[in-house]
Amino acid sequence: MNSKLIWLALFVILLVSASFAPQKKKKVVFFGDSITQAGVSPNGYITVLDKTLKQQGINDYELIGAGIGGNKVYDLYLRMEDDVLSKSPDIVIIYVGVNDVWHKRSFGTGTDPDKFEKFYRAIIKKLQAANAKVIVCTPATIGEKNDYSNEQDGDLNKYSNIIRNMAKDLNLPLVDLRKLFTDYEKSNNSQNTDKGVLTVDGVHLNDLGNEMVSKAMWEQIKNIR
Amino acid sequence: MNSKLIWLALFVILLVSASFAPQKKKKVVFFGDSITQAGVSPNGYITVLDKTLKQQGINDYELIGAGIGGNKVYDLYLRMEDDVLSKSPDIVIIYVGVNDVWHKRSFGTGTDPDKFEKFYRAIIKKLQAANAKVIVCTPATIGEKNDYSNEQDGDLNKYSNIIRNMAKDLNLPLVDLRKLFTDYEKSNNSQNTDKGVLTVDGVHLNDLGNEMVSKAMWEQIKNIR
Amino acid sequence: MNSKLIWLALFVILLVSASFAPQKKKKVVFFGDSITQAGVSPNGYITVLDKTLKQQGINDYELIGAGIGGNKVYDLYLRMEDDVLSKSPDIVIIYVGVNDVWHKRSFGTGTDPDKFEKFYRAIIKKLQAANAKVIVCTPATIGEKNDYSNEQDGDLNKYSNIIRNMAKDLNLPLVDLRKLFTDYEKSNNSQNTDKGVLTVDGVHLNDLGNEMVSKAMWEQIKNIR
Amino acid sequence: MNSKLIWLALFVILLVSASFAPQKKKKVVFFGDSITQAGVSPNGYITVLDKTLKQQGINDYELIGAGIGGNKVYDLYLRMEDDVLSKSPDIVIIYVGVNDVWHKRSFGTGTDPDKFEKFYRAIIKKLQAANAKVIVCTPATIGEKNDYSNEQDGDLNKYSNIIRNMAKDLNLPLVDLRKLFTDYEKSNNSQNTDKGVLTVDGVHLNDLGNEMVSKAMWEQIKNIR
Repeated sequence: MNSKLIWLALFVILLVSASFAPQKKKKVVFFGDSITQAGVSPNGYITVLDKTLKQQGINDYELIGAGIGGNKVYDLYLRMEDDVLSKSPDIVIIYVGVNDVWHKRSFGTGTDPDKFEKFYRAIIKKLQAANAKVIVCTPATIGEKNDYSNEQDGDLNKYSNIIRNMAKDLNLPLVDLRKLFTDYEKSNNSQNTDKGVLTVDGVHLNDLGNEMVSKAMWEQIKNIR
Repeated sequence: MNSKLIWLALFVILLVSASFAPQKKKKVVFFGDSITQAGVSPNGYITVLDKTLKQQGINDYELIGAGIGGNKVYDLYLRMEDDVLSKSPDIVIIYVGVNDVWHKRSFGTGTDPDKFEKFYRAIIKKLQAANAKVIVCTPATIGEKNDYSNEQDGDLNKYSNIIRNMAKDLNLPLVDLRKLFTDYEKSNNSQNTDKGVLTVDGVHLNDLGNEMVSKAMWEQIKNIR
Repeated sequence: MNSKLIWLALFVILLVSASFAPQKKKKVVFFGDSITQAGVSPNGYITVLDKTLKQQGINDYELIGAGIGGNKVYDLYLRMEDDVLSKSPDIVIIYVGVNDVWHKRSFGTGTDPDKFEKFYRAIIKKLQAANAKVIVCTPATIGEKNDYSNEQDGDLNKYSNIIRNMAKDLNLPLVDLRKLFTDYEKSNNSQNTDKGVLTVDGVHLNDLGNEMVSKAMWEQIKNIR
Repeated sequence: MNSKLIWLALFVILLVSASFAPQKKKKVVFFGDSITQAGVSPNGYITVLDKTLKQQGINDYELIGAGIGGNKVYDLYLRMEDDVLSKSPDIVIIYVGVNDVWHKRSFGTGTDPDKFEKFYRAIIKKLQAANAKVIVCTPATIGEKNDYSNEQDGDLNKYSNIIRNMAKDLNLPLVDLRKLFTDYEKSNNSQNTDKGVLTVDGVHLNDLGNEMVSKAMWEQIKNIR
């Protein structure tokens, strides 16, 4: 009889201490370009996700924005020690590719497809070596026309394919924003406008866009143990 | 009885004179770039059409190639007097647009979409003023991948839309090669290669490509009276 | 004796009528891009020239701006009937080339050097056919650094050479703004800044730039009879 | 007296052993693009330097080519461990920049000036951390015209300035090939041709070009202790 009481006491102590223990939150770093930089603004997708989780009483995630405008994949590579690894993240979501394509047109300084993959894989490797779980995303859109007639649609699809294949090859969770956005545009952009449906300017997310990205990312984040 | 004989005699004379009269052939000028320049080669689409018509006993067309490598819409404009109007064509098929898009990437000297339309309309206007019937074509392809992941697919679709809208607006027959090719690739390019299905290099037609273009053009040419 | 008096009387009448006759002003059209469009603004080079001439009591010129932002050589060609020939100009100053080079970088839609010359010569030919005297200018600058280290200096020099050779070939007066500006920068841009010496942004003229262009153009305009 | 003899004996032994000891050669790695890749061909600049040194009885250098066609600064960065550091070089000569500029025009994938400097400095830092002495070079030429009218002269000068400033800032020996070549062209390219004087195609060195580069590099290599 005594031993049973002792066990019960131990169990209660365990429970109580567990609930009072300073719970270690999972650190999630969002690593990207201007779209992610805007993700921490009042209506940004990171802020939206943070609010949603708190409303649902999910308190074990710390969301950290690490987006810088104009960044391409090799910019991420150059600053990953300072801006990501220094934070000892549990999960890193890489969301890059728009500028790698876009800058071909605007500055002549886009990223070659093979270099894009090389740097992307180098980032993943370093993150995994630091024990971070990696989630990758395809770049959503440069122009919202729904019939693949935005100037850089072809190239954006090409780079999205690179990311999709890499995710498959490395067995990484994928947030396929490109597919999500093009599917949505086909059903919901009846005027075939090039902005204003999910973005404010063809690239940067409006409120609906931020919500969609927030939800899609959560679907992958929540699965990671 | 006599009047019947007279009528018969007249009818015979008519028949005989018709068959001996120097039949005026319809002059068809194919006006374009290197794809059309290659159209007059032994397996080119113009040669193919010419052979096919002769095999079918259709002898009232004279097919004339007027393609020059590297041409963009304003090159056509600059040389239309010398190379097209000077031949007093009955029908002119304009097949241009690939270089207007392609040269953006390769030389930085593509054609702005609004200028593309301006020069295209200026060409049509001049041809019609010279009593030529005009047929327009969309540019078929730069790269044969079937999932819109060829680098310049977006821009090629954009310029194809410009031509489609112009054809509708001006009530011109349209050979929608772009649609023809992308539809075909979806069903027949199971390996998703970027060349070798309808082209030799992603742009210039192989035998099958030449046949398809030849047929598609004839469908519009034959309707013109 | 009488005949002498008659001659004298006739001569006097001639003189008087000449001085009272509604003097026909020389129409000078400035044909170009945004730099010329800004030329008619309060401190623009056309306004400056107009004021200077009036201050000097030179009243026999009518200066007309015909500049449109973003124009390349073929834009001038497309609108020359409406915007220049319709005004029956005596003199036309063509000032174009910046966008033909610049748009290679910014939109991928610059002008091939050989097409640049073709359209330029076509414009000159049409203007001369309409009895206008033609003055040509080299494009002044894209960036003011004085050691040929502005990104597009090489190309701008290349297109300036095309214009210089054309002027020589066709025996046309040349306003060599490119030379004028680069010489000035060498002596006066000691900080080697890329804007602020003769332009506000590396391309569009500041007050000093407008004055220099105004003077340089007048040197050629005044020689034309 | 005995001690003096002993000292003499020791000195002789020292001398003899020194001259017979397997002399450690200085490893010099030439790190670059296709120009350096061709440097190890029979008439390439590395081969030329190797022969010249041997003719002069200078045997204490081992020259190693590490050039790969199409490389930009970040390609060097990505492969520096495998191709350079693995060889434990004493001296590394970095010769890069042509493709960083050239690919802007040909593929839209040149390197932004600020990224160029970032990666370049990162390479230098890593090499120095591995105790290699670093020599830097400016990119010689893209087109040989002598009046700064090669399309990309401006940009090439801009990137050369970046390297010059970096060399000054980091106190590194500089082989200013850009200055060497442009000075030579001014005096020796009287026809103002765009190739054939120091290069075969405007970029890759001919025999004279290889000799000049070979000599200029040696001037800096020999000074390094």
